Amino acid sequence: MIKVGIVGGTGYTGVELLRLLATHPEVELAAITSRKEDGMPVADMFPSLRGRVDLAFSSPDKARLTECDVVFFATPHGVAMAQAPELLAAGVKVIDLAADFRLQDTASFEKWYKQPHTCPDLLKEAAYGLVELNRDAIRKARIVGNPGCYPTTMQLGFAPLLKAGVIDASHLIADCKSGVSGAGRKAEVATLFSEASDNFKAYGVSGHRHSPETLERLSLLTGDKVGLIFTPHLTPMIRGMHSTLYARLTTDIDNAGLQALFEQAYADEPFVDVMPFGSHPETRSTRASNMLRIALHRPADGDTVVVLVVQDNLVKGASGQAVQCMNLMFGLEETAGLRHVPVLP
Amino acid sequence: MIKVGIVGGTGYTGVELLRLLATHPEVELAAITSRKEDGMPVADMFPSLRGRVDLAFSSPDKARLTECDVVFFATPHGVAMAQAPELLAAGVKVIDLAADFRLQDTASFEKWYKQPHTCPDLLKEAAYGLVELNRDAIRKARIVGNPGCYPTTMQLGFAPLLKAGVIDASHLIADCKSGVSGAGRKAEVATLFSEASDNFKAYGVSGHRHSPETLERLSLLTGDKVGLIFTPHLTPMIRGMHSTLYARLTTDIDNAGLQALFEQAYADEPFVDVMPFGSHPETRSTRASNMLRIALHRPADGDTVVVLVVQDNLVKGASGQAVQCMNLMFGLEETAGLRHVPVLP
Amino acid sequence: MIKVGIVGGTGYTGVELLRLLATHPEVELAAITSRKEDGMPVADMFPSLRGRVDLAFSSPDKARLTECDVVFFATPHGVAMAQAPELLAAGVKVIDLAADFRLQDTASFEKWYKQPHTCPDLLKEAAYGLVELNRDAIRKARIVGNPGCYPTTMQLGFAPLLKAGVIDASHLIADCKSGVSGAGRKAEVATLFSEASDNFKAYGVSGHRHSPETLERLSLLTGDKVGLIFTPHLTPMIRGMHSTLYARLTTDIDNAGLQALFEQAYADEPFVDVMPFGSHPETRSTRASNMLRIALHRPADGDTVVVLVVQDNLVKGASGQAVQCMNLMFGLEETAGLRHVPVLP
Amino acid sequence: MIKVGIVGGTGYTGVELLRLLATHPEVELAAITSRKEDGMPVADMFPSLRGRVDLAFSSPDKARLTECDVVFFATPHGVAMAQAPELLAAGVKVIDLAADFRLQDTASFEKWYKQPHTCPDLLKEAAYGLVELNRDAIRKARIVGNPGCYPTTMQLGFAPLLKAGVIDASHLIADCKSGVSGAGRKAEVATLFSEASDNFKAYGVSGHRHSPETLERLSLLTGDKVGLIFTPHLTPMIRGMHSTLYARLTTDIDNAGLQALFEQAYADEPFVDVMPFGSHPETRSTRASNMLRIALHRPADGDTVVVLVVQDNLVKGASGQAVQCMNLMFGLEETAGLRHVPVLP
Repeated sequence: MIKVGIVGGTGYTGVELLRLLATHPEVELAAITSRKEDGMPVADMFPSLRGRVDLAFSSPDKARLTECDVVFFATPHGVAMAQAPELLAAGVKVIDLAADFRLQDTASFEKWYKQPHTCPDLLKEAAYGLVELNRDAIRKARIVGNPGCYPTTMQLGFAPLLKAGVIDASHLIADCKSGVSGAGRKAEVATLFSEASDNFKAYGVSGHRHSPETLERLSLLTGDKVGLIFTPHLTPMIRGMHSTLYARLTTDIDNAGLQALFEQAYADEPFVDVMPFGSHPETRSTRASNMLRIALHRPADGDTVVVLVVQDNLVKGASGQAVQCMNLMFGLEETAGLRHVPVLP
Repeated sequence: MIKVGIVGGTGYTGVELLRLLATHPEVELAAITSRKEDGMPVADMFPSLRGRVDLAFSSPDKARLTECDVVFFATPHGVAMAQAPELLAAGVKVIDLAADFRLQDTASFEKWYKQPHTCPDLLKEAAYGLVELNRDAIRKARIVGNPGCYPTTMQLGFAPLLKAGVIDASHLIADCKSGVSGAGRKAEVATLFSEASDNFKAYGVSGHRHSPETLERLSLLTGDKVGLIFTPHLTPMIRGMHSTLYARLTTDIDNAGLQALFEQAYADEPFVDVMPFGSHPETRSTRASNMLRIALHRPADGDTVVVLVVQDNLVKGASGQAVQCMNLMFGLEETAGLRHVPVLP
Repeated sequence: MIKVGIVGGTGYTGVELLRLLATHPEVELAAITSRKEDGMPVADMFPSLRGRVDLAFSSPDKARLTECDVVFFATPHGVAMAQAPELLAAGVKVIDLAADFRLQDTASFEKWYKQPHTCPDLLKEAAYGLVELNRDAIRKARIVGNPGCYPTTMQLGFAPLLKAGVIDASHLIADCKSGVSGAGRKAEVATLFSEASDNFKAYGVSGHRHSPETLERLSLLTGDKVGLIFTPHLTPMIRGMHSTLYARLTTDIDNAGLQALFEQAYADEPFVDVMPFGSHPETRSTRASNMLRIALHRPADGDTVVVLVVQDNLVKGASGQAVQCMNLMFGLEETAGLRHVPVLP
Repeated sequence: MIKVGIVGGTGYTGVELLRLLATHPEVELAAITSRKEDGMPVADMFPSLRGRVDLAFSSPDKARLTECDVVFFATPHGVAMAQAPELLAAGVKVIDLAADFRLQDTASFEKWYKQPHTCPDLLKEAAYGLVELNRDAIRKARIVGNPGCYPTTMQLGFAPLLKAGVIDASHLIADCKSGVSGAGRKAEVATLFSEASDNFKAYGVSGHRHSPETLERLSLLTGDKVGLIFTPHLTPMIRGMHSTLYARLTTDIDNAGLQALFEQAYADEPFVDVMPFGSHPETRSTRASNMLRIALHRPADGDTVVVLVVQDNLVKGASGQAVQCMNLMFGLEETAGLRHVPVLP
């Protein structure tokens, strides 16, 4: 059994890790930290876990995380990089669900996250945790930066087109819609029920932290300079993310050819489902599961390809992906603990 | 492996059975029938099942249900009783999620369901599928009538009080609220998104089919004549049921004594969680799981006890309970295939 | 034109007052205060008011409220009683949407609101702002305590029965469900979208501030001692309140007689709609309007009468009722500025 | 008073017309037809109208529509063109909320709506009812084709850019999101609460009827050939539409210049609100009102302009716009009956 620690388990990615790990056949939940909630049973904060998770939150100093095999950071940006060196030194692997180990370009990190990067050396060593595009590196990694939710959909949706060199990489458009859980469990007026329900809005249109991450990774897939317009929106549902991607074709390729690019790219992937050409995937078809679905369209048979990508932002977009990385890092079956059938309706 | 057939898998209890059975360790899904959708892969109707359920719907005549070990009926009232005799004769066990085998009083059945009961003999043999109150009978049964969703909450909430004889059984009040999935997957104006969301209403206040079922079962628990006012409401959420039960105490019992009645009654139950006295259970703490939670209150320390009961109406209130019955009928671990952690948020 | 001031306009009752008053034919919005938002145009916080309300928030000291004809307090409990004396001395009328002038029993106020009452003399003078039960007093009042949202439904639903003396007043039950806007616009985890949507729960079951208010007012309607079990619930919608009231009949009265009690009581009321016996009113049939609807049921023709009451908690349950009081206090048409047709769907 | 008839008042645009017209100061509701509901009081179907609309539905033959001054068609496509000739001959003006009089290109109409156009002569005479771009024609028209909801947002969002000739008109992208009421009040599985809530999906990505309408109108604004990728999505809210428009700049224009284009274009428009550059309009800021709001963005100061447009799809996107047309056709104040303040929260 792998001994798992979680730092910062009071948010949505934290409780989702707990849900997934509580039934993972190879995992023993060893510790969960929260300075503020020291001593409180996890199941008192999240009654959904009553009888399923017996741990109590403990303050970081008591948690003995160095005795774990792996520690997940479900924390604000900046926490993981402060604690990773000590854990790694003790032989503990680290998976950060925040942004500390996502961007290789530290200048970009510092610009978007408003803080210096404190361990650029570890950053160089860290693997980017998007399994389908980076499986080998993750397998060997001691430290993984788990991708952002939006970047997961954008990369998996654009990658086959970019690798094949069939689109104009300089003018990609990603119009993305997220459920409200993506904003976290912090008390804020903008995400109150009475503000966010029966309402739809864009945010961060002029610039969002997930742009540099996506650009950095997409540029690794292509020789072209990549340009991206990324527009995030908030949609009144708890979980779910729908990305509508637009790209202009630069070569003569028919619809069957486009479809084949995706089917080949993801033929062996347990968590990527390429639907028939012209499908309209619904976010709920992935709810509470680690599955991501993709469908292609080509309106009026013109030169624009539209890629629709859906996932559960808390699972494949966050905690499920992190567990998928853990499975690889410890040589487990990649799907272990992640075989949930989506909850519909 | 138990070979399972499902009759009528196009509704919500049907797709929920598929979700639960697809990962049940002892089950092989053998057949699913739908006259209208003959030949259509189940995963075309429910993309959440893509890659997880390979069956196609087949018309009843082709389905060879008599080769199954057990057949679930997720059909309108009246279908199970028409097909049960042939299946039982072939040695197949039957679990009906509709009302055909719930009411022992056929006159009451005929009054509320507007059709004659066609096999009263089988009815006498049938076990009522509320496990916590009827486990032994279910274990031995060839045929089970799965309880209604509301009756499950009302019976489990009132039973410890009635058995102990501490309340006035002649004036029970059950004010119940159900998510919209309880109304099924039929196309109807009243359950359209634009009608049912951002809205709350009662329905059937003057009389509802779940009253006679509940009265019949509650009266088995007590010598008193039982009287019940049952008020169902529709609340704008997909899954979840919250029953607020009111009863007047007739004996001198303190809060600890009340709490003890419930804790003792459900001490060994894997799917009933008695929360601390004064708790406020939320429906989402049971979402997509077979758990039912109960909490007691006594406002102003007066003579009225308030019992709060929550469950997922599609799981413990329907398909999960049916699987729990199947497990018992086949001598499996009662929790097999039902260990899902509730999905929160 | 009546010059109106609003103290504390950043919450939901505040912005609803602005919506109603912006189109009121006899009102001039003169000032709105917020210490924290001093100088910010109201329409910057609430873009729905762009082009319709030109005011900016101002700090209380600059607001010159003493030059208004009437001041509404849409503030936390305790603010109105601190400022009312000075305003009244200056000839300004006061309408408090919080609890400072609701309870005549100051001991009860201090118990439930955890603060001393600082002006018991004014309290004695204050009129309770439930127009249908207290119209004459409101007409003459300088100061009005606007009722709570739940108490409005409970009083209007029980009053005709209590006045007629046909029910057992000692065991009333009110099972009430409120939209989330009733919890206000404060940033709190419990009312985040991801916590409150797709979820249903009770709260304050053992005791809630609206009980003493309701008991005090109901006891004025009857010689009997009044007993009340009041159970509030949170339901995932923005606006709307549904109260399901239960009472036992103590006299021999038929359904037509019950219906007549309500139709006579509210025959001339512009904002109370008594629906046909056996109706199921929906909250959305009152959305964004000052209308409250009532329907009666008598399950199985037994001795229990069930009264269903719906309203928009922010209008008839708060700001609309306050404007209705203002209209009376200034001799205006009672429906002035309140003739909105409910928004459906 | 203008005598108004409504054909087909049982859908959402019909009941919204009733809500708006019931308080319109210059309108008398004279007749509303429904073959199926002949004799049923409108307020029995829509209790929100109890006490506010006294009409009953009548079958078309009894409705004496030729005695009206104007008749609105809130019907399926094809009904208005069948009845318009007789009404016009009787001197009655006609406003069609369906598609019969939107497309001047009858071949395109017949392709997308699968029926022949039966009165191409009237079509030539008909005015397209998008007031801000076609006010003079509407003022003089006997017959108006009210725009589709999506086309309203796309045209008002792209028009100032196209008129100024600053964007590449051949590659416009419109990523649009609609509340579920846009799908109408028909009983269909796909728009059930349990299907459409907590879910997000695209539909009609490969081709949608609102494309040809939008293309036809946009091409009138520019000499360039217009190309448009239009992607509609369904978002889980009742009312509201959010269109995210993308266009590439072809000239050197700064942000202030872009903003000026919009501010000048809509300077005198009572129902178009150009928000400050970089704003993020929310759909709820227009809820239940005739207002449409626009905001501009230019990500990373690149060559792509992003235009955000929000409206209430049932008001400015349908019935409100129709009333705005009626006001012009009868020489009334353009805002008469349309001064509702948006309902927030």
